[in-house]
Amino acid sequence: METIGLIAGNGRFPVLFARAARARGLRVVAVAHRGETEPDLEREADSVTWVRVGQVGRVIRALKAGGVSRAVMAGGVNKVRSMFSLRPDWRAMRLLGRAAGRGDDALLRAVSAELESEGIEIVPSTVFLQDIVVERGHLAGPPLSEREAADVRLGCRVLAALGPLDIGQCVVVERGVVLAIEAVEGTDRTIERGGSLGTGRAVVIKAAKTGQDMRFDVPAVGPRTIETMVRSGAGVLAVQAGATIMLEGERLIEMAARQGITVVGCDEHGNVGQS
Amino acid sequence: METIGLIAGNGRFPVLFARAARARGLRVVAVAHRGETEPDLEREADSVTWVRVGQVGRVIRALKAGGVSRAVMAGGVNKVRSMFSLRPDWRAMRLLGRAAGRGDDALLRAVSAELESEGIEIVPSTVFLQDIVVERGHLAGPPLSEREAADVRLGCRVLAALGPLDIGQCVVVERGVVLAIEAVEGTDRTIERGGSLGTGRAVVIKAAKTGQDMRFDVPAVGPRTIETMVRSGAGVLAVQAGATIMLEGERLIEMAARQGITVVGCDEHGNVGQS
Repeated sequence: METIGLIAGNGRFPVLFARAARARGLRVVAVAHRGETEPDLEREADSVTWVRVGQVGRVIRALKAGGVSRAVMAGGVNKVRSMFSLRPDWRAMRLLGRAAGRGDDALLRAVSAELESEGIEIVPSTVFLQDIVVERGHLAGPPLSEREAADVRLGCRVLAALGPLDIGQCVVVERGVVLAIEAVEGTDRTIERGGSLGTGRAVVIKAAKTGQDMRFDVPAVGPRTIETMVRSGAGVLAVQAGATIMLEGERLIEMAARQGITVVGCDEHGNVGQS
Repeated sequence: METIGLIAGNGRFPVLFARAARARGLRVVAVAHRGETEPDLEREADSVTWVRVGQVGRVIRALKAGGVSRAVMAGGVNKVRSMFSLRPDWRAMRLLGRAAGRGDDALLRAVSAELESEGIEIVPSTVFLQDIVVERGHLAGPPLSEREAADVRLGCRVLAALGPLDIGQCVVVERGVVLAIEAVEGTDRTIERGGSLGTGRAVVIKAAKTGQDMRFDVPAVGPRTIETMVRSGAGVLAVQAGATIMLEGERLIEMAARQGITVVGCDEHGNVGQS
């Protein structure tokens, strides 16, 4: 039986990953982060070792002890919480020193190199989840209006400008006005802020950062995204096709359709059409 | 006696402008916006005509009736409030149709062209206020640490990326992490959000947008900026020298010094030194 390692962050993604991997007959050896990972993971993985954010040495030991040679990273960590409570072990200290920037990708690339030096290859977490990578086109709700399509394109321009700085995966736009830009507060709070500044049909755009390494924390939307939009008064969700995954997609599409929320997959320029 | 027109938005800036212009012996003919401009302006200007946001025709008539051939725009308007409550007159409608983009500058440029076609020249509001344009260097509080200087430079990179899109004048950074980026919520709310995510020494960077037309709403800081920083737990204020004005500068510097808040003027790359 093949073994896959799972370095689990927060949210539903690690749980869904473990379930999908086991459904394919794999053994899942997970490392979970205290205060981040959902305890549910215990039910879906074959083994779970709990560590604190920053204990890179313990992550490596747990994976090696579990016989892991291939692992995925799934789910993020709360950047603000971890930024100020991080107690890195010596291995993390060494790689923090080497990491070129302080952006997520730079740090995760350093963690990934550390693991690979120990014979553990990091593979994209979408490996068993190709069916949930968002495709281009109309996915739910009323058709996109001209105005909304223009807002999607503007949002993509904003995200393209911020991407090289390793920040920003989400932006909220209405009638050509950029209502909110995500920094570290996370996508849900960005949607709440932007939606509450709009008139009920604000457009939420979620995309990958330019050159984002898909082995780390793939941008994801899920039913909670739709719940946040309903609560905040946002009306359109545009996600970058090919670079974003949809968790519990059927439920998301069904919720969006019922709430009259439009969901589309678009390219990095915000185009939804297939041409 | 020379007459100067004042198209007044919100905040202290219009009031301070009128006071400075009258101190120079000018007659101030003001147009104030209901729900935006502080009623105090009545005491500082020679005449005030109240209009609603979007009544461009009335602005022109009021300035012409007052014998104005040169006017300034001072203070912003609440973009979110005006976006959804705007009832433009025919003149505003016509120029909204012509405005290339929906960014502030594009709209204000169109308003400005409309006024100039009527013989009213728009001049920068800093015309009588050169002494309050921020200069480069250390202005108040403890010296900037290495870490804070790096945060200032990062913030300037973020603002430089967003500037061409006509958004973003403020960003909050701490330890290399971008905590908050301003969209339409305004600088105070951005400072509140970013500061509350930091540890008490978050760095606030305020700059002009790339190519910002200084005839319209010059970026300004004032004592309220320091109050917001104290309340939110931000510790450093870096403002772009030459492109930002400091309202009630003596009071701001005195408040910052008393609160241990560092204030610096920097160039567009975030450099504070004079070289």
